[in-house]
Amino acid sequence: MSQALKEDVEEGVVFAPRFDAHGLIVCVTVEAATRDVLMVAYMNELALEKTIETGFAHYWSRSRRELWRKGETSGQTQKVLSLRVDCDQDALLLEVDVGGDGKACHTGRKSCFYRALNGDGALVFSADGA
Amino acid sequence: MSQALKEDVEEGVVFAPRFDAHGLIVCVTVEAATRDVLMVAYMNELALEKTIETGFAHYWSRSRRELWRKGETSGQTQKVLSLRVDCDQDALLLEVDVGGDGKACHTGRKSCFYRALNGDGALVFSADGA
Repeated sequence: MSQALKEDVEEGVVFAPRFDAHGLIVCVTVEAATRDVLMVAYMNELALEKTIETGFAHYWSRSRRELWRKGETSGQTQKVLSLRVDCDQDALLLEVDVGGDGKACHTGRKSCFYRALNGDGALVFSADGA
Repeated sequence: MSQALKEDVEEGVVFAPRFDAHGLIVCVTVEAATRDVLMVAYMNELALEKTIETGFAHYWSRSRRELWRKGETSGQTQKVLSLRVDCDQDALLLEVDVGGDGKACHTGRKSCFYRALNGDGALVFSADGA
């Protein structure tokens, strides 16, 4: 990136998300009330458009290769309270209110990050099952 | 992924991070004290190893193509309090204590996510300049 372009991207007010070679941008989704990181997913241009247009999070499922309105079947919708972009505009941060039972992860847990690495190099499940 | 493998990856205690075709895994870094999302960056296998070994966040800089110990020159080190992995083990979540002046973003701000999209489609800078 040239210095002038870098300045525009980082210090400008123009929203110019940078999709990768696969047409995707990574998105971190945080629950507004608790600030828990719920999930990391990807959006293509259409998913981002639909998210902005409807006010509800849409993602691109890389495994199913389809647009995915979060909670469409499960009820765990994500109402977008804010959409942020990072300095170089290649990552998004959604702050959401979660619908349904609030379990964002397809495994039935609140957050996808339900395991932490311990000192022995094994994963330990969160005590609260979240 | 087969159903058996999926079960191992999602419900097992074996840490088996899934690096992408470029040998990278995405990492979300959150400040422990405030739960602010500071940044999204990438690790290769070496960066992850160094992070675990030293207890301080290391990333792979895609632009500079080099291993990067966060804060090495700036002093804004990130002491790792926990390292989490998501359900399908293709994303990491670090909870950190930040050293130095606490400004994780190279633009001199605390968080890389210092701009939000407003209703008119323009970006608005955070009032606190964070």
